Amino acid sequence: MKSSPFQLAAFGGAPAFRKPLHVGQPILINPETMLADIDSVMRSGQLTNNGPRLQEFEAAIARVCRTKHAIATCNATIALQIAARALRLSGEVIVPAFTFIATAHALEWIGLDPVFADVDPHTHTLDLKSAEECITPRTSAILPVHLWGHVCRTQQLDELCRSRRLRLLYDSSHAFGCQQDGVPVGNFGDAEVFSFHATKFVHAFEGGAIVTNDDGVADRCRRLRAFGISGLTEISDVGTNGKMHELSAVAGLHSIATMSSRVAANRANRMVYACHCQSMNGLSLLSTPEGNESNGQYLVLTVDEQQFGLNRDQIVSLLRAEGVFARSYFSPGCHQAEPYRSADSGRHVRVPLDVTETLSKTVLQLPTGPALAPADAHKIGLLLRLLHQHAAEVRRLWSGSENCLQYHPSDPARPAITVREVVHRDTKLREAG
Amino acid sequence: MKSSPFQLAAFGGAPAFRKPLHVGQPILINPETMLADIDSVMRSGQLTNNGPRLQEFEAAIARVCRTKHAIATCNATIALQIAARALRLSGEVIVPAFTFIATAHALEWIGLDPVFADVDPHTHTLDLKSAEECITPRTSAILPVHLWGHVCRTQQLDELCRSRRLRLLYDSSHAFGCQQDGVPVGNFGDAEVFSFHATKFVHAFEGGAIVTNDDGVADRCRRLRAFGISGLTEISDVGTNGKMHELSAVAGLHSIATMSSRVAANRANRMVYACHCQSMNGLSLLSTPEGNESNGQYLVLTVDEQQFGLNRDQIVSLLRAEGVFARSYFSPGCHQAEPYRSADSGRHVRVPLDVTETLSKTVLQLPTGPALAPADAHKIGLLLRLLHQHAAEVRRLWSGSENCLQYHPSDPARPAITVREVVHRDTKLREAG
Repeated sequence: MKSSPFQLAAFGGAPAFRKPLHVGQPILINPETMLADIDSVMRSGQLTNNGPRLQEFEAAIARVCRTKHAIATCNATIALQIAARALRLSGEVIVPAFTFIATAHALEWIGLDPVFADVDPHTHTLDLKSAEECITPRTSAILPVHLWGHVCRTQQLDELCRSRRLRLLYDSSHAFGCQQDGVPVGNFGDAEVFSFHATKFVHAFEGGAIVTNDDGVADRCRRLRAFGISGLTEISDVGTNGKMHELSAVAGLHSIATMSSRVAANRANRMVYACHCQSMNGLSLLSTPEGNESNGQYLVLTVDEQQFGLNRDQIVSLLRAEGVFARSYFSPGCHQAEPYRSADSGRHVRVPLDVTETLSKTVLQLPTGPALAPADAHKIGLLLRLLHQHAAEVRRLWSGSENCLQYHPSDPARPAITVREVVHRDTKLREAG
Repeated sequence: MKSSPFQLAAFGGAPAFRKPLHVGQPILINPETMLADIDSVMRSGQLTNNGPRLQEFEAAIARVCRTKHAIATCNATIALQIAARALRLSGEVIVPAFTFIATAHALEWIGLDPVFADVDPHTHTLDLKSAEECITPRTSAILPVHLWGHVCRTQQLDELCRSRRLRLLYDSSHAFGCQQDGVPVGNFGDAEVFSFHATKFVHAFEGGAIVTNDDGVADRCRRLRAFGISGLTEISDVGTNGKMHELSAVAGLHSIATMSSRVAANRANRMVYACHCQSMNGLSLLSTPEGNESNGQYLVLTVDEQQFGLNRDQIVSLLRAEGVFARSYFSPGCHQAEPYRSADSGRHVRVPLDVTETLSKTVLQLPTGPALAPADAHKIGLLLRLLHQHAAEVRRLWSGSENCLQYHPSDPARPAITVREVVHRDTKLREAG
C-alpha cells in the first residue's frame, strides 16, 4: 500500500491498479449461455423488426416494473424523443439542469425547448419550487430525472402536473429496478424512459425502453418507433427508427436475468466506501432517500474542498493516474452546454441554478458493481485517505509538476506519468467516447 | 408444378413453398466465425462508444466506397437526421415522393419540411426538372435517393445544386457497393447515407452510415452521433445518440466481407427471372441504367394490368398465398402518408407526382439473394406464367372467393387459404413489422 504522496502515480509512482477500473464497467455474467442464444438468433433468419427476443425482453421489462407496457428501443435518447412525440409535447419542457445532456438534447433535437430547473442539494433530483417557477403558458410538460436511482418526489409532481395541466414524463435512465415505498419505477407519470446503455444496471450494449400503463401512449410509441406505419398501406404519423434488434434484445434478456446478483455486489462495495468516508472530512457518500430501494449502480460522493484539502477535479486526476477512472458527472451543468449557453437570455434559463452549479463542481462518482472486488474498493478508500491526510503536500507536488514532463521526486530515473499527461489522456479518452 | 389456376394456394391448393420466401431475406454466411468474434467482444469489456470493431467496420465501409470518412450509426434514419443537422439544413428539403417513408420522415422528425418531387419512369430516381420546380427561397437542399441501387444523375444534380446554392445529400440506403462509371456510391454530393438494416445488401442487424470526403462534415457527424460532446467538459452542439454498438459492428464486418458472393447469387437469379419475363406480356423487369454497376439486391418489376390480365396487388396476394412474399414497394407514395397528406396544400406537394402515383400501383419486388436458389426463382417464374396464361379464370375465381371463408373449387373438404385470409395475414405481418 502507498503510504506517502511521493508514491502517487501522478507524481511518478507505479499506478495502484494495472487494469483500469471504470465507473459503469459492463458485466456479462454468463457469456456462454448468451452466445448460444445469439447463435440461435443468427440461424432463425429474423434479426430485427419486433422479433421474438425483443418481445421476450419487453415482457421481462414489464414484469420487473409491473407496468402494462414496455417498448424497447435502440437507445434512451431516441426513446425520449418518441415518448415526447407520443405524448404530443410542444413548446417548453421543464428539465433539471443537473442531468446527462441527453435529457435536454433529446427535446431540442425534435424542436422542443428545454427549460432548466434546479435540483435538491440532498437527493440531486428536481427541485419542485424551482420547476414550478419555470412554468409559462408555453410549458407542455415536466421531465424529471430519477438521478442516481433516487426516485423523484412523484406524488407532489403528479399534483403539480395535474393542477397545471402538464404532461409528466420521467427520465429513468438510472433507475431500472428501483422502487419507492414498494412501487417500482415505471409506474410514475404518463410514461418513463429507461436506458440500457452498456454502463447501466441492465444493459443491451445500447438500448432503451419506454414504459407506461396507458394503452394509447404505448400504441403511439410502438408506431413512432417504426416510422409511424400503422398498417399495410397506411402511414398515420411522422415516426423515426427506434427499433432494437435481436442481438441487443438477447443481451438485455441476459442482463435482466442476472440483476439481483449485481444489487448484492453494489451493496457490499457501498459498505466498504461508507466506512472509509466516515473517517475523512469533506468527502460525503450520498445517502439513499427515505423509502427508496436502489439498484446501487451509482456510488456518488460530494467533495468539500476546504475540509478535504483538495478539490473534486484534483481528486479525479490523481485517481485516474492510479488507474481509477472516477467521473466528475455532470460537469458542466446542462445550461452550460451549447446551444443553451449561447441562446437568448430567458429562453432556457430563468431561475437560479445554484445547486446545479455547486454539484457540477463537487460531485464525484467512484467505480462499483460486480467487476469491482470489495478489496479493490478498500484499496480506493485507502488511496482517498492518503490524499486527505497529505492534502497539503499533494497540492505542493501538484503545482510543482504542472509544467514538468518528467517528474519523479523519489527516483528521477523512473519513467513517470505526469499530471499533464493524465489530463491529456483524459481528453483523448473522452474524445474517443 | 402447378398447371391449373385451381391448384393455386389462394383458392385452396397447397402453397408452392412450404418455407416462405422473403424479399431481403437476411443472410449470415459464416455464423461460426461471427460467433467467435462476438465472444471476444463480450470478453473485451468495451461494448460500445467508438469501440475497436466499430472503427474496423468504418474503415471497411470507407475502403469499399473509396471515401475519406465513414461514420457508422445505429440505423439509417438517425444517420439522415445527423447528416441533415451536420450540413445545417433548414426550411425545405426536396425529396422524391417515390421512396421509403423514412427519407421524408427523417427530415420532418427534426423540423425540416420535405417537399416531394416526382421520379423518372425508367430509373425510378429523382426527376431533375420536377425537383427544380420545387425550389423556393426556403429550400436548403436536395435529398435524392439511389433507389434500387440505381445511381441518380449525379453530375446534373451537382450542377443544379451548385448553381442554386443548395446542399446535396444522398439517401443511398439501397446502393452500398454500387458504382456509376467506375465511381463508387459514397462520393457524390456533400454526403451520402447508407442503410445496414437486416434486409439490406450489407447489414448489421440494424445500422447505417454517413460517408463523406469533407473533413468538417465528418467531424460534425461524429460529434452529433454522440450527444454533441466535443471534449471532456465541452458540449458544443445539440446532438442525439446515433451510436452503433460492437455486436452490430461485428455483424457488419462479416456482412461486408462476404458481399461479392451475394452479387453473384443476385446475378444468377436475375437471369432466371429475366428469361421468364421475356415470355410474358405486361411484366417488365426494370433494367439497370447505362454505366451503373449494381449490387443486384433489388429485383423490381412493373405490372401492366391490361397486358398481364391481373393487377399488381392481385399478383402480390396470389404469390403470398404460395409462400412468396413479394412486396408492393412503395405504396402509398410518401405524399400520401401522414402528416403530408393532410398538410396545407402546397406545403409538401407543389408539382404533379404522376409517375409516383403510377409506380406506387404497379411496382412489384420479388425475392432474390443467396437465400433463393435459382431453381426457386424458376418456380416463381412458372407461377407468374400460370397467372398470366389463366388470368381470366383467376379473376373469376378471385371474385368468387372474396366473400367466402372456405373456398376450394376442386375439393371442398380440404382446408383452404382464402383470399380474405391472405389479406388478413398480410395485415398482421405488416403490423408485426
